[in-house]
Amino acid sequence: MNVERLARYLPFLSWAREYDKESATHDGLAALILTLLLIPQSLAYAMLAGLPPVVGLYASIFPPIAYALLGSSRTLAVGPVAIVALLTASALTPMFEPGSADYIQAALLLALLSGGVMLVMSLLRIGFLINFLSHPVVSGFISASSILIMLSQLRHILGINTQGDTALALLRSTIKALPDTHLPTLAIGGLSLVFLYLARRFGKTGLAALGLSLRKAATLTKAAPLLALLVGALSVHFMHLDQQGVAVVGKVPQALPAFALPVFDLDLVVKLLPLAVLISLVGFIGSVSVAQTFAARRRQRISPNQELLALGGANLITALSGGMPVSGGFSRSVVSYEAGAQTPLAGALSAIGMALTVVFVSPLFESLPRAILAAIIIVAVLTLVDLGQLKRTWQYAWQDGAAMLATMLGVLFFNIEVGILTGLSLSLLLFLWRTSHPHIAVVGQLPGSQHFRNVARFDVVQSESVLSIRVDESLYFPNARYLEDRIAQLIASHPSARHLVLMCSGINLIDASALESLEAITERLHTSGVQLHLSEVKGPVMDQLRRAQFLDQFGGRVFVSHYEALLLLDPITTRRTQDALPTHCPISPESNHLKELN
Amino acid sequence: MNVERLARYLPFLSWAREYDKESATHDGLAALILTLLLIPQSLAYAMLAGLPPVVGLYASIFPPIAYALLGSSRTLAVGPVAIVALLTASALTPMFEPGSADYIQAALLLALLSGGVMLVMSLLRIGFLINFLSHPVVSGFISASSILIMLSQLRHILGINTQGDTALALLRSTIKALPDTHLPTLAIGGLSLVFLYLARRFGKTGLAALGLSLRKAATLTKAAPLLALLVGALSVHFMHLDQQGVAVVGKVPQALPAFALPVFDLDLVVKLLPLAVLISLVGFIGSVSVAQTFAARRRQRISPNQELLALGGANLITALSGGMPVSGGFSRSVVSYEAGAQTPLAGALSAIGMALTVVFVSPLFESLPRAILAAIIIVAVLTLVDLGQLKRTWQYAWQDGAAMLATMLGVLFFNIEVGILTGLSLSLLLFLWRTSHPHIAVVGQLPGSQHFRNVARFDVVQSESVLSIRVDESLYFPNARYLEDRIAQLIASHPSARHLVLMCSGINLIDASALESLEAITERLHTSGVQLHLSEVKGPVMDQLRRAQFLDQFGGRVFVSHYEALLLLDPITTRRTQDALPTHCPISPESNHLKELN
Repeated sequence: MNVERLARYLPFLSWAREYDKESATHDGLAALILTLLLIPQSLAYAMLAGLPPVVGLYASIFPPIAYALLGSSRTLAVGPVAIVALLTASALTPMFEPGSADYIQAALLLALLSGGVMLVMSLLRIGFLINFLSHPVVSGFISASSILIMLSQLRHILGINTQGDTALALLRSTIKALPDTHLPTLAIGGLSLVFLYLARRFGKTGLAALGLSLRKAATLTKAAPLLALLVGALSVHFMHLDQQGVAVVGKVPQALPAFALPVFDLDLVVKLLPLAVLISLVGFIGSVSVAQTFAARRRQRISPNQELLALGGANLITALSGGMPVSGGFSRSVVSYEAGAQTPLAGALSAIGMALTVVFVSPLFESLPRAILAAIIIVAVLTLVDLGQLKRTWQYAWQDGAAMLATMLGVLFFNIEVGILTGLSLSLLLFLWRTSHPHIAVVGQLPGSQHFRNVARFDVVQSESVLSIRVDESLYFPNARYLEDRIAQLIASHPSARHLVLMCSGINLIDASALESLEAITERLHTSGVQLHLSEVKGPVMDQLRRAQFLDQFGGRVFVSHYEALLLLDPITTRRTQDALPTHCPISPESNHLKELN
Repeated sequence: MNVERLARYLPFLSWAREYDKESATHDGLAALILTLLLIPQSLAYAMLAGLPPVVGLYASIFPPIAYALLGSSRTLAVGPVAIVALLTASALTPMFEPGSADYIQAALLLALLSGGVMLVMSLLRIGFLINFLSHPVVSGFISASSILIMLSQLRHILGINTQGDTALALLRSTIKALPDTHLPTLAIGGLSLVFLYLARRFGKTGLAALGLSLRKAATLTKAAPLLALLVGALSVHFMHLDQQGVAVVGKVPQALPAFALPVFDLDLVVKLLPLAVLISLVGFIGSVSVAQTFAARRRQRISPNQELLALGGANLITALSGGMPVSGGFSRSVVSYEAGAQTPLAGALSAIGMALTVVFVSPLFESLPRAILAAIIIVAVLTLVDLGQLKRTWQYAWQDGAAMLATMLGVLFFNIEVGILTGLSLSLLLFLWRTSHPHIAVVGQLPGSQHFRNVARFDVVQSESVLSIRVDESLYFPNARYLEDRIAQLIASHPSARHLVLMCSGINLIDASALESLEAITERLHTSGVQLHLSEVKGPVMDQLRRAQFLDQFGGRVFVSHYEALLLLDPITTRRTQDALPTHCPISPESNHLKELN
């Protein structure tokens, strides 16, 4: 096998050959910056997942290396991310005590299963299945999950104990425990929240106003969480706040992860599989959309199946090396890109940084207040809550808005699976509903032209003996009988019609149900003395119709253009209209609303 | 309320006012012929449903009267039909002993529920829901049900006992019981089968050859079942075959049905409801398609919601008057139509015929052999088994063929609900799959024209700087990301492109997912220096796009025609191509395959 073919499966081969010193310098610098961002994120997302913080660090070592070898994106940075951490927690919390040995083992199994699901999807080339997760459903899921995440982190900010899986239960539990608020914890958590929020909101412009370049200001802003952690750790250390009841991370093992197979329990596998599938899909969607955004900037290509393979590999390796389920992260990819990373080697180099962190820096984490990690999580997911999106989606199409709202309510008040399944079912049903009564227009000829337009929208001429109908939808089972009904209606109200020409420019598919309906329509039209014809049938639809008897039996003709049909069936009216003075503006009203080419 | 408005809800008002002596004569004659057909059918379908034969007679009295008052079809004849009888049996047999008092009560409740479901659907105007039962699924269901019906009736022909719900169980049970075959019963059943089959197959042409008019021959042929019953009853009576073990109908109460409410048992209601919904849907589909076929012949209109109301009323009245679930029947409607029925009064008059039959003729039914009723059922449903349809559907579109096959296998080897649900799910999934990777063509200009065609099918000219793409599918969630991916691919392979014009003539809908994808595409194209434009956007799609920010933000233009777009974006190539000599035949190759106007 030559290198080109091999490079399709091991994309790093395509850039490794051209790798030079300059790229190495860029990647090295980016890796350093990335490491500084990854330390607080890894600790925080492990805590969000209900796992010991070191697990987050472990999950930032081998997965980026696996991705660097297999991934088709040159920019995507892989590791623990908020949504996947939440999914992990919601899968495992009902079964085990968070942080317990069983819980940690189950998290590894979950990562293994997610990796397995991704690899299987990649091998079967069924990555396209994610397409069925509609945008409104995904976006509703992310907003609602982020709200759940924030609610679940409130307890660390307030220093209280809460429990519950749903938004309502968490809120109620939090309000009930409010009197127990631990004031020193609240002070640390609240200050961190404010600081991190202001840094994210105004850090870049503020630093730029102080004279830094925009790019440097942006990168420096990303160090805010690290700064917060540093100040927090020092405060705890010197003021002995942990002895006053401020929860801290505690002892972190100063050892690199040991490789081991997760304990394989078939019962547990069956229980975890649905969530593993969900983690795979959600992680995959997130990663691919981030990767595609960056790839477009450099006119590079992302192969979804290769991405599945790479993310699957990353999850397998995290399962074998004591980590947690991982995915591609947006913020870390931005940081890596803006810090000048040229290749996935930047991610792999940051893995070395994380390994060094574990070995040499982790004793410092002992005094890290959990409240600051919670503040980091809350500020990170705050931007993911987009209620304006719900409004915009509803305005654009209430069907999509309804699917989004149903997903959000389901996630918030039941659980994640209920939310997503409800949203998906609603998306599907409302789509079927929309296409079940398609736009069917009677069309007439625009005077002075060969064009045919809706008689309700334009001042057109209709033939007495030929009824022209345009259907703006593929013909398939949900609308097949509707078509029969509408045509019966139209024929009953046009008693002088002897021909009916169906303009098929909007028909992309005619399924077997619709074919039978066309046969029924033909037969019923015959009994009332009308002949059916088709015009402007698309190539693929025509190819398929030829495989049936319909074209031989329906007795009509198929015309390449609607004008040609009318010219043959009612030459006098058609020619007279064509020669008439135009009564319409030559460009349809749409143009007026549009601005000039920029 | 004036009569016109009232007539919308009581359609008989529209014909009752013009009713005259001539119509009455026609209707009276048709009613007589209809009654002669209905007697054997009613007895047979009651037996098929596992009910005493008199129930079938009862179900032929009041339901046609209710339909005559409420129905919008002037031809549809309502009463017991084979498929609905089978559904009744398959609902009740697992719960009660066929023919027992509980069984009969449950059948009444089932009719009441079906009627209720239809009325509710009519009031909510959700009759369109039947559209989701695709033709291949319905057709597969009918073929498989007919096979089940035939297998279940074999025991009456052979004079044996069999049991089982599935095709396999029935076959196995029949083969096991073959040695017990009762030869006198087999002789009667076999002879009837042969006679009825020959009468149906050759009766009409045979009688016509003897000098009868085709119409009279057709009507007379329909009397074959009655003749078979008469001969059978006389043979039993004079040869005392019943004492030799030939099963007969036995005592039939010589009384008109008494009105009573069915016993209302909530547990039973919950159990029967799914089948009641199925009976409603299947009965409704059957009736509407029969009614539409006849309405078209006279350019009359059928109102599906009014039909639901009428069929619902017919089922309620049958439940109150000791009948069984009813629906519109095809063969009886044909007979009624061919016998010259002018209005639904023919059906109502046949009800009087049936009532007279119950009172005066039913003692004669005592000696009717069940084997002949079974033969009548078998020959009636034989025409409903259409395996050729499966082959044709598969050839036309394997996706539809697969849905049909799945329905058939499900009905035959599991049960009716499994079959229909499997078929429906498969229809839906395969439709989504088909639309999830739409036909996307790069188009170029046909020399010497303003038309743009697929570069793979036609010898066209492409602009260097403008990439033209046509999508032949509505843009919605299953294909939104596919579009992103394909456009990324196409842009990567056309590095010189500065503009991309999306030709939207085949796009009937852009949902929120696709809108977000278009936004993502726009942004990614921008980062690689390409501007997106749209052309030939349909009115309704344009209306919807205006409700979003997209048109203001995407930076491109919307062109009324694709030619206009190219003329502005690459005037030199476009004008030169337009002025070039045509290299293509003026009419596309499709036309050659089509025959002349008949």
